[in-house]
Amino acid sequence: MSFSAEERGRDNTPDYRLYCRDAEGKHISPFHDIPIYADEAQNIFHAVVEVPRWTNAKMEISTKDPLNPLKQDVKKGSLRYVSNVFPHKGYIWNYGAIPQTWEDPGHRDADTGCCGDNDPIDICDIGNKVCSRGEVIRVKVLGTLALIDEGETDWKVIVINVEDPEAEDFNDIEDVRRLKPGFLQATLDWFKMYKVPDGKPENQFAFNGEFKNRDFAIKTIKETHSFWKALISKKTAAGELSCVNTCVSDGPFCVSRTEAKAIVDSARPYGEAEPVPSSADKWFYY
Amino acid sequence: MSFSAEERGRDNTPDYRLYCRDAEGKHISPFHDIPIYADEAQNIFHAVVEVPRWTNAKMEISTKDPLNPLKQDVKKGSLRYVSNVFPHKGYIWNYGAIPQTWEDPGHRDADTGCCGDNDPIDICDIGNKVCSRGEVIRVKVLGTLALIDEGETDWKVIVINVEDPEAEDFNDIEDVRRLKPGFLQATLDWFKMYKVPDGKPENQFAFNGEFKNRDFAIKTIKETHSFWKALISKKTAAGELSCVNTCVSDGPFCVSRTEAKAIVDSARPYGEAEPVPSSADKWFYY
Repeated sequence: MSFSAEERGRDNTPDYRLYCRDAEGKHISPFHDIPIYADEAQNIFHAVVEVPRWTNAKMEISTKDPLNPLKQDVKKGSLRYVSNVFPHKGYIWNYGAIPQTWEDPGHRDADTGCCGDNDPIDICDIGNKVCSRGEVIRVKVLGTLALIDEGETDWKVIVINVEDPEAEDFNDIEDVRRLKPGFLQATLDWFKMYKVPDGKPENQFAFNGEFKNRDFAIKTIKETHSFWKALISKKTAAGELSCVNTCVSDGPFCVSRTEAKAIVDSARPYGEAEPVPSSADKWFYY
Repeated sequence: MSFSAEERGRDNTPDYRLYCRDAEGKHISPFHDIPIYADEAQNIFHAVVEVPRWTNAKMEISTKDPLNPLKQDVKKGSLRYVSNVFPHKGYIWNYGAIPQTWEDPGHRDADTGCCGDNDPIDICDIGNKVCSRGEVIRVKVLGTLALIDEGETDWKVIVINVEDPEAEDFNDIEDVRRLKPGFLQATLDWFKMYKVPDGKPENQFAFNGEFKNRDFAIKTIKETHSFWKALISKKTAAGELSCVNTCVSDGPFCVSRTEAKAIVDSARPYGEAEPVPSSADKWFYY
């Protein structure tokens, strides 16, 4: 399966949007219409890259807008660029989400004791390639970290792009520890500190900050997939989430190709990017 | 004084060149024609940025080509991109050189016991701004590290852009240690390891890797300025170096504005960049 991106609006402005298309050019939702599995038997999942490695713009699947385009998070009226906490430059992985998953805010996790954060489950791709924004990759799952963000469970699943030349050497969390020394600790430190420059406290973790292994991570992803299934079939109330989709053909939120195109056509035309503000280049030291 | 850049050829190809112009648009040599001092009484120096922070292309003042444009170093026929040694992404400072200095390969340094590397003296600008390639900045000197590269002394002078909002807090090497914790150690580690991915041994340092302070660094810069003076006045043989300049009006290498323009006009026209090879995105772990 192959997917492509269609950009609207102007990058580094609040009206920037990145919509997804499938191989036929049909507009689709990256949240609902990209299959969770690239190969279910092999536990290969799809992942949508929201933030390419080494960049700062906090791009995310807009869960509340129809067709769920990627857009940049806005905080207190300002576009959000994640601060660089020394020695790190931007995000240290390709950061994104697994489609057709949902961290149900109405479900209290038995392990963490906290409810979900109302988003698809997040991934950190440790592959060497710097992916592009909106790229859909196929990933092997290696483990997971349980970030507790303002009292909500926010799983960070560690994955590797199956196209990585070294992908076959990575099969569980211990392989990351052994073959990329320092990267798991940096991942923990990154998530602990990344909001501190904005005046927030250090983030907390369940399991004392330990990474759980592959099997645990896969179990967690499958659970969030079941929450998504309940969401998309209206068994769980969607609240503010937009469940508009084009592929779940027996579902209550399914729209036609024409309707999907109309949604994209109503977005601002693509235009020249604004520059990234120089404040995004600052390094913070602790 | 203000300076500007004129690009020729295509970025990420061997024919890329960046020439310097002065405020009047006259073509000049960044090696010989930009004054070493921005303010001699205050010990404010000029520096030419060759490599912006967080980039990988090893751009450098071409000491052997007339007017000394910036070009990308070529090694074994390939354009050179410095490897990313985890956790670092590209160069961790704005990296460049102080004009009108020369590390004389015929002079054995009393402290390091090694001769100079035949280049202008290098700087690492720790300011927050990511400078542009070819940008000429005014810097305060804070200290220096004595890298020994294949038996040659290769001073790395730690500086801060005087335009940095925090510049007034930085006056000596201890201020860097205190206000940017970890940055000096990272600087040492970076220089120690950066050639290891290319199969080279770790680099060595004089003074057991200790950073020398501001006064020592200024003394060293002034000494390399005196070597340059001898070079530009033909008191020392230039060897392969190009000493063509437009400002040292009583010197033997001075050319007219028309001659300087002819040198630039002989370079390839400016064209569209090639992409950076994806191999430059790899992270190496040790």
